[in-house]
Amino acid sequence: MTQTASIIGGGVIGGGWAARFLLSGWNVQVFDPDPDAERKIGEVLDNARRSLPGLSDVALPEEGRLSFHDTIANAVDGAMWIQESVPERLDLKLKVYAELQAACAVDAIIGSSTSGFKPSELQDGAVRPGQIVVTHPFNPVYLLPLIELVTTDANDAATIAKAQGVIRDIGMHPLHVKKEIDAHIADRFLEAVWREALWLVKDGIATTEEIDDAIRYGFGIRWAQMGLFETYRVAGGEAGMRHFMAQFGPALKWPWTKLMDVPDFTDELVDLIADQSDAQSGMHSIRDLERIRDNNLVGMMRALKAQDWGAGALLNAHDRAIATLPDLDQADLSQPIRTLHRAVPLDWTDYNGHMTESRYLDAFAQSTDRFMRIIGCDDDYIASGGSYFTAETHIRHVDECHAGARITVRTQMLLGQGKKLHLFHSMYEGERLLATGEHFLLHVSLETRRPSPPSDEIEAAMARIAAAQADLPYPNGAGNAIRKPA
Amino acid sequence: MTQTASIIGGGVIGGGWAARFLLSGWNVQVFDPDPDAERKIGEVLDNARRSLPGLSDVALPEEGRLSFHDTIANAVDGAMWIQESVPERLDLKLKVYAELQAACAVDAIIGSSTSGFKPSELQDGAVRPGQIVVTHPFNPVYLLPLIELVTTDANDAATIAKAQGVIRDIGMHPLHVKKEIDAHIADRFLEAVWREALWLVKDGIATTEEIDDAIRYGFGIRWAQMGLFETYRVAGGEAGMRHFMAQFGPALKWPWTKLMDVPDFTDELVDLIADQSDAQSGMHSIRDLERIRDNNLVGMMRALKAQDWGAGALLNAHDRAIATLPDLDQADLSQPIRTLHRAVPLDWTDYNGHMTESRYLDAFAQSTDRFMRIIGCDDDYIASGGSYFTAETHIRHVDECHAGARITVRTQMLLGQGKKLHLFHSMYEGERLLATGEHFLLHVSLETRRPSPPSDEIEAAMARIAAAQADLPYPNGAGNAIRKPA
Repeated sequence: MTQTASIIGGGVIGGGWAARFLLSGWNVQVFDPDPDAERKIGEVLDNARRSLPGLSDVALPEEGRLSFHDTIANAVDGAMWIQESVPERLDLKLKVYAELQAACAVDAIIGSSTSGFKPSELQDGAVRPGQIVVTHPFNPVYLLPLIELVTTDANDAATIAKAQGVIRDIGMHPLHVKKEIDAHIADRFLEAVWREALWLVKDGIATTEEIDDAIRYGFGIRWAQMGLFETYRVAGGEAGMRHFMAQFGPALKWPWTKLMDVPDFTDELVDLIADQSDAQSGMHSIRDLERIRDNNLVGMMRALKAQDWGAGALLNAHDRAIATLPDLDQADLSQPIRTLHRAVPLDWTDYNGHMTESRYLDAFAQSTDRFMRIIGCDDDYIASGGSYFTAETHIRHVDECHAGARITVRTQMLLGQGKKLHLFHSMYEGERLLATGEHFLLHVSLETRRPSPPSDEIEAAMARIAAAQADLPYPNGAGNAIRKPA
Repeated sequence: MTQTASIIGGGVIGGGWAARFLLSGWNVQVFDPDPDAERKIGEVLDNARRSLPGLSDVALPEEGRLSFHDTIANAVDGAMWIQESVPERLDLKLKVYAELQAACAVDAIIGSSTSGFKPSELQDGAVRPGQIVVTHPFNPVYLLPLIELVTTDANDAATIAKAQGVIRDIGMHPLHVKKEIDAHIADRFLEAVWREALWLVKDGIATTEEIDDAIRYGFGIRWAQMGLFETYRVAGGEAGMRHFMAQFGPALKWPWTKLMDVPDFTDELVDLIADQSDAQSGMHSIRDLERIRDNNLVGMMRALKAQDWGAGALLNAHDRAIATLPDLDQADLSQPIRTLHRAVPLDWTDYNGHMTESRYLDAFAQSTDRFMRIIGCDDDYIASGGSYFTAETHIRHVDECHAGARITVRTQMLLGQGKKLHLFHSMYEGERLLATGEHFLLHVSLETRRPSPPSDEIEAAMARIAAAQADLPYPNGAGNAIRKPA
């Protein structure tokens, strides 16, 4: 059954939450008194629709329904999750919670996007404090997976488990902070770095651009995949973490930072930083920068996905949870079998947004891989020493498609007998044929890397598909060659 | 002429410098009294050879010659760059500089890898202070491009320009810090975050793994591409940087960090962190973690490269500087034209290190793109509204290759006339044929996206190649089809 989330307070953060829920198949009900709320959330949704679905290697559920409401009571009707993203003023948040709890389901979860307040402060004076938790996201919410889930003793185990389940359901990672603290975890680091950066700019040591370069050409890209401690563990080498700390520990006594000594936030400092930022980034509009950022994040997260590491490992786990491709017993074997159903990711497209040539083969290779799994050539089988190698490929490009397009590949087996496997993939967007991929594969021994017969189980599965597809017509375009010029 | 760099002090950092110079075609002369130095540098080089060359989309120069020397005098003989990476003790460094300057060329540059000392401290008492600069790298030095180049008034403009040139020559980015400060720029941030992290662990708020997750699932991946200020500029939205600072500035007054208040570095704290780190990462050896890290970094940096952004934009600029592929007037047109010469990157390989199926088409598409440029279909031409689209592709997989393999593609034009372009690519590792790619392309109008005739210049270039290649035999495998099963 479709579930409902309520978004209290739109803007960049609330809009990001709305996008996460909508694109995960939830209905979303928004309350925001800002007359521009619908436009603002629409802009975040535009960004999310082009970037999030393609992060997955499987199709996301059909998008939910978005609605806007004039009262909090209407907005929370039927909602099992209520996300509060109003401005960071405690009095305002407490007033909103009183209104929410007067109208919402008693078993709904109220998550706060607060970056600074502790959950005990938010629960203070509430009629049902156990319903309120901190669920602090990171911008862009529709791409970054981190949620700091901060709870207190007022939240029972069932509520915490339910919150974790919903966060995972929308493709995010609940980092459960069990001991509350001002600013949770991540923002304490951001604050520390921000303060030191202000000093460096103010003292004329570095410009905003130089500081950004110092981060993104060095430790930033390191932290994107391993964080702080694992990075240092590697740096410490075989001698281990204790050895690393023995080396690095003493530096703690050195006066390298000025962090609790806060620079005065004068107009001059604001002007200095704003002017440097204009010089650094002013050639791009904010809208351009958002898209550049999202392209970068999608590309890097998909790179981590290929390594099954960090944020990429989270994405793979989510794909497995929502995958809907049929296996041998579920598929209608008398028709070409659905072996791919996904959105075209941003990093598969060229500068003008069309899917680029080599990614057609990437998609067909995923289909071949899926077909291999269907007939029993899965990870365990490959680990036992057998697999299929592609010997020959023939691709016909029929039509174009864009980033975000939902594509489906259906696969007809032209031959599956002994060591030979001959597949014909057809790629569609809706009913529109985009390309065909014809592939001739050989079963090999991974030890000798020479052709060898497959297992009896694979042989039997191929025979079953061959019998079921025997009456399918030989596909148009199969067996074609690129003709020799006259 | 091959240039020579001298590496004083091996280990992880010195070894990383050695790899940068060697793989950029420099000869490298090492001095390190550690009897294990040769083995240690060899291990760093192994990591570098598998990861660095494939970051480029063009082949790096032939590797230089590595030698080990018993004395500083021998190690600096003929060197125009001397990199000092000895332990962080000022007395030791000053002693080393005295020895270096007694033997090295007066116009050589002496760069120090120090993360803490200011260049004025290193120059103090030197016979030629103007020769000494700080060139602070980041681990892994063979992948991360950042060098903090810190200079003083003792360094003249010519020396600084020369240092910048060498750093760029080996594919790195000189971030020139003109006003010296303890710990330069980046390590001040690292120190601030490290201190706060120690508090969070000590106070039981979060484990090392939770802190790493808070970084790599959130701001870490954001910083990898835009750093701090540009990220906040985007977050501030159209209202701009001043508006963002007005919102965020007051938080400076909040007591969120404990950073100058240093936790006591007790055995208990060391044990707590080391034990948590073991629980987090102990299932991987350090060697495994190094390779995982390098795979991740290569994948993410290549993702940024595809967006021509951040560390990826640096890589593209370096590729352009070292590219050696022939153009129309340089190529021997009577033979298949060299259209690709590169190393197979880590992110093109499958779990067991073989180049994966779809990347063959990626390589062939790069060759097609290069061939298009050769005949005049370059960025300007495409911007003017014409291009080629691939209609049909036929790939034969003949043999396998691994990450790091240097592959070359040679391209025969089978037809280039009017709107039709028929290419036959052959991919080799050395003399070994790996695959062939046959491609039929149509010239199109990018406005109508329908076939259209190319420019007269392109028609003329194709005619010139057709005449020159007229006597080449029709290639083996061209015109093949995957046969219909009997």
